[in-house]
Amino acid sequence: MKKSSGGAQRLVVGYHSCHEALVTHPNWATEVCIQEGRERELDPLIQICKKKKISFKTKGKKHFNALAEGHQGVCVSLSDRVRWDDEASGKEDSLVVFLDGITDPHNLGAILRTSWLLGVNGIFIPKNRSVDLTPVVCKVASGGAEHVPVESCHFGSQLQWFKDQGYWVHGLKENGDILLPQLKPGGKTVLVVGAEGKGMRSSTENFCDQFVSIPQVETGSSFNASVAFSLCAYEYTRHRHL
Amino acid sequence: MKKSSGGAQRLVVGYHSCHEALVTHPNWATEVCIQEGRERELDPLIQICKKKKISFKTKGKKHFNALAEGHQGVCVSLSDRVRWDDEASGKEDSLVVFLDGITDPHNLGAILRTSWLLGVNGIFIPKNRSVDLTPVVCKVASGGAEHVPVESCHFGSQLQWFKDQGYWVHGLKENGDILLPQLKPGGKTVLVVGAEGKGMRSSTENFCDQFVSIPQVETGSSFNASVAFSLCAYEYTRHRHL
Repeated sequence: MKKSSGGAQRLVVGYHSCHEALVTHPNWATEVCIQEGRERELDPLIQICKKKKISFKTKGKKHFNALAEGHQGVCVSLSDRVRWDDEASGKEDSLVVFLDGITDPHNLGAILRTSWLLGVNGIFIPKNRSVDLTPVVCKVASGGAEHVPVESCHFGSQLQWFKDQGYWVHGLKENGDILLPQLKPGGKTVLVVGAEGKGMRSSTENFCDQFVSIPQVETGSSFNASVAFSLCAYEYTRHRHL
Repeated sequence: MKKSSGGAQRLVVGYHSCHEALVTHPNWATEVCIQEGRERELDPLIQICKKKKISFKTKGKKHFNALAEGHQGVCVSLSDRVRWDDEASGKEDSLVVFLDGITDPHNLGAILRTSWLLGVNGIFIPKNRSVDLTPVVCKVASGGAEHVPVESCHFGSQLQWFKDQGYWVHGLKENGDILLPQLKPGGKTVLVVGAEGKGMRSSTENFCDQFVSIPQVETGSSFNASVAFSLCAYEYTRHRHL
């Protein structure tokens, strides 16, 4: 399976996200910046840097404001990102998610946060038509970006690869074949979620073995993309706790 | 049961939210403003106004920018809001939600959007310690604010009232008595969700008959409040579709 190349260098801002990055991947940290005057509230992060021998700088407020919203006076540059491991796909009970063009960084961040907590094995996004691991995405993910691989790929060949490995491909869609609560999940599953508003491309739909719908009282409106994803991921993983 | 008094007048911004308000509650609309130069894209709303004999004004961009983010060139002033109806509480299969101090308007908005689509019967918030139906909340709710009652109340007496009506009170909490997937839902239920970060007050906890936890892979982090709510609301309503 092809891996996405380049673009591994990334910036993380915000207390929780930086904390998780420093604790989980100290060897990836190439630069840590702390805002002047906020050393006290950020002291737990400074202590991690000292303990793990990661050098850090102090910078003015302007530096941070130019980086990203919600920085909380701290940023960490990382030399790498979590990668999908083909071995992991061999698991009997694996859930992989394909996001067909999510463009709102808050949605991808929220999806990563939930994916981490629910144990989703990996996220795949299309090249060029999706937001990737931006500072805002990592910030909203609250540490999820340090645990769940996000790989950009060519959807067709990647979905075919999963099918060849014995995965069932389920697409989330209005008016699908089956309602989410009626699923009997378990086993190796790819869940495909469409873009905000647009849904999924027909070329992606062609790879789906089944279409799943979330039951809703009102048919004229729809769930937020990250909520819709969360409900599905919960349904697919809930049986692990029964 | 006491109803919250005053504060019924509210402002809604954004295309979908205004559309839902005008279609659902045309009699509540006291003022509709359309941004100068955007009459064409907002024509469906203008047509509703004409059909329902609601007068509308055209205003400059400055007027809207001062109101709220994400206004999309339209705002509607409404003279009332959806109210909780005691009769509805008599339903055998009712789900009511108490939010113990949600302060982020995006969270309350997201909770309202999901509540509408999943058929939650009503939302209760504490007086003075919670965000209420602000323009941003109604905007994020994408129409949900026109369907699900949000009542501010005194938590103690209101929770007692529900208990007296035969409701079970479930609190969402880490390390609860039971995992969410192990619930056998159905019947009249109050779900209590704590504030972002802080959780719920101990005075609120005292009313809970049972504490429910969402299973999570990583215990050091937690779900976003609106995602946690959505997973619970889904679990409590999913049996309706089996």
